[in-house]
Amino acid sequence: MKKLGVLLSGRGSNFEAIARNIADGKLKAEIAVVISNRPEAPGLETARRLGLHAVALPSKGLPREEFDSQVASILDQHNVDLVVLAGYMRLLSGAFVKHFAMRIVNIHPSLLPAFPGLDAQHQAFEYGVKIAGCTAHFVDEHLDSGPIILQAAVAVEEADTAETLSARILKKEHRIYTDAIRLVLSGEWRIEGRRVVSSRMPLR
Amino acid sequence: MKKLGVLLSGRGSNFEAIARNIADGKLKAEIAVVISNRPEAPGLETARRLGLHAVALPSKGLPREEFDSQVASILDQHNVDLVVLAGYMRLLSGAFVKHFAMRIVNIHPSLLPAFPGLDAQHQAFEYGVKIAGCTAHFVDEHLDSGPIILQAAVAVEEADTAETLSARILKKEHRIYTDAIRLVLSGEWRIEGRRVVSSRMPLR
Repeated sequence: MKKLGVLLSGRGSNFEAIARNIADGKLKAEIAVVISNRPEAPGLETARRLGLHAVALPSKGLPREEFDSQVASILDQHNVDLVVLAGYMRLLSGAFVKHFAMRIVNIHPSLLPAFPGLDAQHQAFEYGVKIAGCTAHFVDEHLDSGPIILQAAVAVEEADTAETLSARILKKEHRIYTDAIRLVLSGEWRIEGRRVVSSRMPLR
Repeated sequence: MKKLGVLLSGRGSNFEAIARNIADGKLKAEIAVVISNRPEAPGLETARRLGLHAVALPSKGLPREEFDSQVASILDQHNVDLVVLAGYMRLLSGAFVKHFAMRIVNIHPSLLPAFPGLDAQHQAFEYGVKIAGCTAHFVDEHLDSGPIILQAAVAVEEADTAETLSARILKKEHRIYTDAIRLVLSGEWRIEGRRVVSSRMPLR
């Protein structure tokens, strides 16, 4: 069974969705450990309630490299195959990204490369897009910039507010993040340039 | 009957689609004049074949303001209600945009604000997006930046090349551009911030 290591900083609703999908047999994997850089993150409480290893590792005051190295140790102790970010509010150091090269995934509430960074749904709504969405992607050391695994579109409706739109995007996030993790764990993909391509496709 | 003025620089496949939709009764409007800044543009030939006023107005060597002022005169002579860009490879001067404020529309082959500029479909394909698309928008003096009227999403398929993807996007362009023109001509919209909102929606 492939092992996931979840990093979060808050509620971790995508973590909850993944845990639920595992429980429902929709994703064959186990969550080996859940780590939060914020001890007060509600996601840690959820992890404990689900009987998972939950580790609070305060990042405050630590240099990035030092903190990331501690996180990497814990992930390695648990033999994690894939690092799953779920509302993890930190950029990762180059060393961390290198250590887990193409084994770190994230979900972002916009159709990247549009609207990277915080509050992507509000950014998109205020910009006036008619198609919003979300993106599951590999993580590199830059903000929301790694190769895209899956995306889903969400149409902006006339009566939408930023909040109703965000809620519909979140539902899609819960769905495609699990699909993306399943695809990555299957190993049936390769990278061409920065495109994630099914390994069933012939080389061009 | 509302009058359209089409500006193009090449084949103008979106112009052809609009002309076809008008002929089929799907869009109640008439094309009052077609202007190309390139005398050799195949779109001019198409316009003549359809019995439309076709004007070749070479931009070469002319200062932007001067050229745009000539274009504006021709559009005004034909009492144009809406200026429709169809592969028009020029930025518009501030004076032109002001003269036709919120009466200039364009279609762009990406989900703006992602991938503005040339070769948007190739940019998107090489970036590795899984959801591509197109955008009908109002035009201001900046590149591909005005308020968005309509967008359509196009899923990138495993077997796609940049060319097959472009072809599917183009089909969507032909559909949503006509829909966007119909919406703008109806007058049933307003601008909130930079969002295009149906005027049937109550003010927030």
